[in-house]
Amino acid sequence: MKAPLVSIIMGSDTDLAIMNQAAEMLEYFNISYEINIVSAHRTPERMFDFASNAHLRGIKVIIAGAGGAAHLPGMVASISPLPVIGVPVKSSNSIDGWDSVLSILQMPGGIPVATVALNGAKNAGILAATILGVVDISIQEKIIAYKNQLKQEVIAKADKIGKKLI
Amino acid sequence: MKAPLVSIIMGSDTDLAIMNQAAEMLEYFNISYEINIVSAHRTPERMFDFASNAHLRGIKVIIAGAGGAAHLPGMVASISPLPVIGVPVKSSNSIDGWDSVLSILQMPGGIPVATVALNGAKNAGILAATILGVVDISIQEKIIAYKNQLKQEVIAKADKIGKKLI
Amino acid sequence: MKAPLVSIIMGSDTDLAIMNQAAEMLEYFNISYEINIVSAHRTPERMFDFASNAHLRGIKVIIAGAGGAAHLPGMVASISPLPVIGVPVKSSNSIDGWDSVLSILQMPGGIPVATVALNGAKNAGILAATILGVVDISIQEKIIAYKNQLKQEVIAKADKIGKKLI
Amino acid sequence: MKAPLVSIIMGSDTDLAIMNQAAEMLEYFNISYEINIVSAHRTPERMFDFASNAHLRGIKVIIAGAGGAAHLPGMVASISPLPVIGVPVKSSNSIDGWDSVLSILQMPGGIPVATVALNGAKNAGILAATILGVVDISIQEKIIAYKNQLKQEVIAKADKIGKKLI
Amino acid sequence: MKAPLVSIIMGSDTDLAIMNQAAEMLEYFNISYEINIVSAHRTPERMFDFASNAHLRGIKVIIAGAGGAAHLPGMVASISPLPVIGVPVKSSNSIDGWDSVLSILQMPGGIPVATVALNGAKNAGILAATILGVVDISIQEKIIAYKNQLKQEVIAKADKIGKKLI
Amino acid sequence: MKAPLVSIIMGSDTDLAIMNQAAEMLEYFNISYEINIVSAHRTPERMFDFASNAHLRGIKVIIAGAGGAAHLPGMVASISPLPVIGVPVKSSNSIDGWDSVLSILQMPGGIPVATVALNGAKNAGILAATILGVVDISIQEKIIAYKNQLKQEVIAKADKIGKKLI
Amino acid sequence: MKAPLVSIIMGSDTDLAIMNQAAEMLEYFNISYEINIVSAHRTPERMFDFASNAHLRGIKVIIAGAGGAAHLPGMVASISPLPVIGVPVKSSNSIDGWDSVLSILQMPGGIPVATVALNGAKNAGILAATILGVVDISIQEKIIAYKNQLKQEVIAKADKIGKKLI
Amino acid sequence: MKAPLVSIIMGSDTDLAIMNQAAEMLEYFNISYEINIVSAHRTPERMFDFASNAHLRGIKVIIAGAGGAAHLPGMVASISPLPVIGVPVKSSNSIDGWDSVLSILQMPGGIPVATVALNGAKNAGILAATILGVVDISIQEKIIAYKNQLKQEVIAKADKIGKKLI
Repeated sequence: MKAPLVSIIMGSDTDLAIMNQAAEMLEYFNISYEINIVSAHRTPERMFDFASNAHLRGIKVIIAGAGGAAHLPGMVASISPLPVIGVPVKSSNSIDGWDSVLSILQMPGGIPVATVALNGAKNAGILAATILGVVDISIQEKIIAYKNQLKQEVIAKADKIGKKLI
Repeated sequence: MKAPLVSIIMGSDTDLAIMNQAAEMLEYFNISYEINIVSAHRTPERMFDFASNAHLRGIKVIIAGAGGAAHLPGMVASISPLPVIGVPVKSSNSIDGWDSVLSILQMPGGIPVATVALNGAKNAGILAATILGVVDISIQEKIIAYKNQLKQEVIAKADKIGKKLI
Repeated sequence: MKAPLVSIIMGSDTDLAIMNQAAEMLEYFNISYEINIVSAHRTPERMFDFASNAHLRGIKVIIAGAGGAAHLPGMVASISPLPVIGVPVKSSNSIDGWDSVLSILQMPGGIPVATVALNGAKNAGILAATILGVVDISIQEKIIAYKNQLKQEVIAKADKIGKKLI
Repeated sequence: MKAPLVSIIMGSDTDLAIMNQAAEMLEYFNISYEINIVSAHRTPERMFDFASNAHLRGIKVIIAGAGGAAHLPGMVASISPLPVIGVPVKSSNSIDGWDSVLSILQMPGGIPVATVALNGAKNAGILAATILGVVDISIQEKIIAYKNQLKQEVIAKADKIGKKLI
Repeated sequence: MKAPLVSIIMGSDTDLAIMNQAAEMLEYFNISYEINIVSAHRTPERMFDFASNAHLRGIKVIIAGAGGAAHLPGMVASISPLPVIGVPVKSSNSIDGWDSVLSILQMPGGIPVATVALNGAKNAGILAATILGVVDISIQEKIIAYKNQLKQEVIAKADKIGKKLI
Repeated sequence: MKAPLVSIIMGSDTDLAIMNQAAEMLEYFNISYEINIVSAHRTPERMFDFASNAHLRGIKVIIAGAGGAAHLPGMVASISPLPVIGVPVKSSNSIDGWDSVLSILQMPGGIPVATVALNGAKNAGILAATILGVVDISIQEKIIAYKNQLKQEVIAKADKIGKKLI
Repeated sequence: MKAPLVSIIMGSDTDLAIMNQAAEMLEYFNISYEINIVSAHRTPERMFDFASNAHLRGIKVIIAGAGGAAHLPGMVASISPLPVIGVPVKSSNSIDGWDSVLSILQMPGGIPVATVALNGAKNAGILAATILGVVDISIQEKIIAYKNQLKQEVIAKADKIGKKLI
Repeated sequence: MKAPLVSIIMGSDTDLAIMNQAAEMLEYFNISYEINIVSAHRTPERMFDFASNAHLRGIKVIIAGAGGAAHLPGMVASISPLPVIGVPVKSSNSIDGWDSVLSILQMPGGIPVATVALNGAKNAGILAATILGVVDISIQEKIIAYKNQLKQEVIAKADKIGKKLI
């Protein structure tokens, strides 16, 4: 078992179904990861420890998902020197997702969070791979192959659907 | 000099003009306070220390102002057992104030922030007084007097403006 | 039976399922409360009487929930010298909750309402306890214990979910 | 001097510049009116008295303007049996006017407010005239004449601007 | 059978379930009405004829409901000298009702529409009664009675729900 | 079989149910068309080729549907000299359709997209016919007939529903 | 002087500065046009006549601009068989342009309006040219040339700005 | 002169003042970069070439800024295997920045863009450094130092402002 390169964290276990989509993409790219719950609001010390130590444990990229007044990605980014990818989750208490999006995206100058689409955990996994592809050319090649696969899937569907009528 | 009962904190000195309006109301009600900068994103340890110790120092109410992805009020509320009043500030990087409002208001179950209007630091000061009025009947009496004063001001203006025409 | 310290009111019985969550938290903290319907729009005199007298009856904190053009929290706050916690309810006639949130949150200078998240009645109950904790150290200790319990629940879930793969 | 048929009220003297546009239209239609400040939040008893008595004093239509968490039109409508026209004012503390609009428009079933556009006090004046035109055919005739005048003004501008080029 | 005093129109028969709520309130107040479909977009001449003639046929108030880019209330108001009450309908093609609300509410200076809440046809019926109450004191008395009934219903519910615990 | 005059493309086969409504209207007007999947994001070269060549293949109008960060209509419009009609699709990952609408509508100066309503593929088909009616008077006549048919349908429904009560 | 092929209309002369940008693009493409004021709300008969007759006068494309509750483009589209391009104008009474956009874009099924960006009159002019390019190959060639010119302008700016540092 | 590791591109030279803030942060971290204009809409081939070749030229991270219907970041991300950081720019034609944000953030599954705050080019520069810090420990150390510097600046300001009154 390899040491994890990516750490996927989330504010609540209700975010798990969404955040597992990040894990699936990392598995697809054969990138080692860990996944866990770290709540900025209910376990602030745990969050603090996590963010202070992740880079010392060999983690290279953090993916953090949260909903509503979503502080986890930004707080982790304020402490860790690693790139932090934020996933706004449309949780049950969210106002159509706007709170999740804005409280992750609109970070002040100095503390960036790499935000993806609402519920976009799949893209967070791919983005983590893309970042690791900066170091590891074999991952970049897998990303190129993945993009080709997306293309082939569209073309296959297009061949099936494409029609000219009248 | 009395020990401060209310602590006013803000994420950035650019919020000072707004947050001073809370201080002015506390002075009006003759309530001792302190005012300072504590950034959740740029000084997370300082925020952590502040929130862990405020109630031990005799602080009774915290007023926290921040803008954009405003995490300060919520993070302090996650650590401190004191009531935390959040002031969404329409800072220069804010999207019309929506990010400030939503990232303070939409806290998850378990961690409330008493949110006031956008740039509503004046009301935060009054709300802090109202909370202290629960303990101290003399403050509650001042609040009743303040409400009467608001009423008299409106009536004085009404007397001046009121007109019947044609 | 103790005299109630907190009064939970709401504009309509359709808000009851949400507002009961405030009651549950007050029971959790063993704080006496009353719960009732007081409509600003359909029983304005009743609302007026309620708000004028609550502090004289020994009530210390008011929790008011309403939806749509939600005037109950603000009107009660305009009359009562007590801290008023407003709960925006996403009622059936609400536009995604925005009307409920804005008509409670955006009070003018002079008349604060301590607003919590959309449907955030649970947090309103906790906030009331936090306010009473300013007076009563035993309540503040319960809040500290409650925060610890939230932490333990997250850690228990984290232990169950936490995994490292590949 | 005729007894006023229309009462124009507003929450604050800062709304006066906008609300005077309602008065101007009433003067245009030669309809008697009164204009004054009645704050739902700062003078709730005054608001209550005003709304309870307006129809007894011979008032036929109420125009109420307010901004932010604008409760004046809805509270007056909850008490008075008269038609209440609400003017959302984009006051300085408003979030782009959305709070003013939603807290006036989204009244619950049972208590209507006839809402006009943001800052639409001019239209409130015309709407009041239209309502009085239901009783008084001479006012309805003036409205027909006014619509004709609007038409002629557009046609005059069109004659001046209209051009065909190349 | 009395000649109708109120005309309820709507852009599409899919709005009928909502708009019938206006009719029910008019029946409650014993006010004669007619109800029909008049589409601004699909039957513009019919709309034009309707709006030009309604006041000549003895109609006193028009209630017009429409959804999406809802032009019916505003176009009728541009032609008719009668008060026009607009009901924004949250139709299936609407973006959460915002388009319906804004395209009815935000009329230009000169052409008011008395807008009620999203899907607020019930309130449109009551508002029409309130307007007719300006002419007919017996209707105004019914409105006062209706407000009392609302009050009694709330008090009955309050008696049932009201409780004091612990 | 006639060569297609209109090309309907979409970013994903999940948009097919919506986009078929454009095809149905073209069949109604007896206009030849083709329909296929061309993804700006997953098949950028294919999109590039499509947009570069459509006018050379005899296509006269392009209808492009996409959801979320919907780039297909705008990218095709940037390459092709043909009129491009954009259909914002409320896809599953969309924030209530706002992203789809804004990322198609708000094109920069120089590159227009003729945007229709959210999920408005039916109208896209009619708009394409209207554009081809500029060239072909027989299509314009069909559009006039279609508008008449809409009118007759409304009148038939109105005859059925129209009622006068009490 | 050629007969106009494009008719540019607007609801108010305050829209003229914006709408002239459409005229400028038509002049650039050497397409004859007329420009005038036609208000749906203040001159409904004029609007009706205009829309009924435009195609009989040889007009091929209509460009209609309006702001707020902007009914002009949709009403003209409901009457005329010509393609109607709608320009949402951010007028002074508009709520940040949202009302203008939604009341033009969100037309019901059957009556399309080709909507361009907020204040996007320049693009309306180009879109009209693109539509006429379906008939007239010389216009399509000019559009191809225009796109090339845009490209050259960007490349010239890029050559000037482009830099590589450190 | 070192080969550039980061490529900063933008859709228009009007975005330059904002995007230069990314360049300034890269200079601060002593990271080589290039900066240029590449318009998705006006130079689609150039964009295509840029995105296809950037990783072959040694570029490791792309920062792309655009406003309105902002397609540049997403289109480049659809073609390049590199991490693409998107900067939503509040350009003059933007609707308060919402269009810029949503058309960059809400990318479909498969094609992530690492989005930063509205006008957040400074954070884009820091995020690029953070990503390069995954490869290069000396950059990660500079980021840790930068975070310390932010902290010191806040503390210095806090020392100056911090006060306790009454």
